[in-house]
Amino acid sequence: MAKKFQITILGSSAATPTSMRHTTAQLLHYHNKRFLLDCAEGTQMQLRRFRVPIMAIDHVFITHLHGDHYLGLAGLLFTLHLLGRNKDLHIYSPSGLKEISELQFRTSNLIPSYQTIFHEIRRGGETIYEDDHLLAETIEMQHRLPCFGYLFREKPSQRNILKEAIDRYGIPVSAIPDIKRGGDFVTKAGEIIPNATITKTPHRPRSYAFCSDTSYTERFLDQIKGVDLLYHEATFLRDKADIAREKTHSTTVEAATLASKAGAGKLLLGHYSARYKDLGLFIKEAREIFPDTFLAEEGNVVEV
Amino acid sequence: MAKKFQITILGSSAATPTSMRHTTAQLLHYHNKRFLLDCAEGTQMQLRRFRVPIMAIDHVFITHLHGDHYLGLAGLLFTLHLLGRNKDLHIYSPSGLKEISELQFRTSNLIPSYQTIFHEIRRGGETIYEDDHLLAETIEMQHRLPCFGYLFREKPSQRNILKEAIDRYGIPVSAIPDIKRGGDFVTKAGEIIPNATITKTPHRPRSYAFCSDTSYTERFLDQIKGVDLLYHEATFLRDKADIAREKTHSTTVEAATLASKAGAGKLLLGHYSARYKDLGLFIKEAREIFPDTFLAEEGNVVEV
Repeated sequence: MAKKFQITILGSSAATPTSMRHTTAQLLHYHNKRFLLDCAEGTQMQLRRFRVPIMAIDHVFITHLHGDHYLGLAGLLFTLHLLGRNKDLHIYSPSGLKEISELQFRTSNLIPSYQTIFHEIRRGGETIYEDDHLLAETIEMQHRLPCFGYLFREKPSQRNILKEAIDRYGIPVSAIPDIKRGGDFVTKAGEIIPNATITKTPHRPRSYAFCSDTSYTERFLDQIKGVDLLYHEATFLRDKADIAREKTHSTTVEAATLASKAGAGKLLLGHYSARYKDLGLFIKEAREIFPDTFLAEEGNVVEV
Repeated sequence: MAKKFQITILGSSAATPTSMRHTTAQLLHYHNKRFLLDCAEGTQMQLRRFRVPIMAIDHVFITHLHGDHYLGLAGLLFTLHLLGRNKDLHIYSPSGLKEISELQFRTSNLIPSYQTIFHEIRRGGETIYEDDHLLAETIEMQHRLPCFGYLFREKPSQRNILKEAIDRYGIPVSAIPDIKRGGDFVTKAGEIIPNATITKTPHRPRSYAFCSDTSYTERFLDQIKGVDLLYHEATFLRDKADIAREKTHSTTVEAATLASKAGAGKLLLGHYSARYKDLGLFIKEAREIFPDTFLAEEGNVVEV
């Protein structure tokens, strides 16, 4: 069975919160791990609201240091300290966050109960995280400040051994690693059991690209080619393309165009300007170009 | 008629937000002015939720630099910038907030559209704000960090001239200031009209003391004697007096004892530890000592 790979939307407003929307944050739940993507003001409350166990978060990925993407980090860090966390916490971000965070702890005269490890992001296309099943790499956005999206790629899975084959052929534990890599099994009697008989093909590796904030650019198009789920900011509707360019943000049409060129499976829009109450036109405009478009809205859970 | 003098509770949780309560912030609405007292994470959203016009806030009073009392300030400052504010904003706080705030703006590569004027609080009993009607003075708390409460006192009002007296005696505008200060009026014919006949006694000056965070102390008892409304933190119930002392916080009983000794009009409790879901015992324990006790709960509006 494929491992859990889902996104929970914690905030989707650009620049300032509105009465309906918090600013940017998402939770990526992959298998038994939780990754936080951006951490705007109120993220710790949103995590609580959507019943995410905050102690399970070991990695926080911050795209850039505009307030609407990181101002909730300090509150989360203080809360983890108050809860007595002792596991390391890894924070990935462009330069500057460590200094702010350390100044805040120093000013409060607190030494955190856990280690905070800051990883400074300097360029796109770098693998910055890896575990047995998942990789994360940076994607260079085009924004007023140094800004990086994050691409989460599942590693190719090994073949899954069928439980009934283990019983039927008496496959010993020692033979399993080779079979998982595609090898046949040779019984004690010398009979060769072809791999295809005793395993099944694993699911195709899945991927999620989190792209915020950026003006329209194809600089990372190759990197996200074939991504299963693309989150791309769409701060404005298409009639505001000039403002979008000036503010280094994107429109619905631009996000959908990139999704289409990348051959993405699905497109998730977010980072809506506070000027928009109703998001109906966001989905309408984007779907004219890329039909499999969805809206990031608070509490939505999206499968990758 | 007495001027508006009311408090709106924006947050009442200690240390960390809970699913029901934000951390500390209050809005003081006096006459035509709005003052923000502490500014925890999420305060800008709470202001929006309770329909407070955030541009009308010109003065922010921060008690101390633990995260649960100031982490919402950066978000508010960025939002005011994005809204194009150009009026000065005054921020009163113990040392350290200016440095954090300036670092955050610098990191975001933003120059605020308005002047932020930081007033560093160093001792209690100082008048730090004054306008035609109201004074604010600092109150020295007893806490792990330098920490100051704020006492807002109405200035004694002048006597109110009765409208019908102006008409009946033909009182000219030039005579009004003297009458307001208590003088009699002398008609053209030389008749002396006693002040009491043509004015009415103004209401007694009111006062609000915002005392958070502190362990039990009588060091500011004289300063708050006779206060109309005392907000005093009560982080714990009475059975946790040891923990309260250790963490330099107070219990229900301690807050009520101080209110009683101060001869306060009403006591408002708040800053409840996140361990408490139900606040019933807070009110019960405090009322045994000081009957006019009320609970700070989000959205409550309390008249001073």
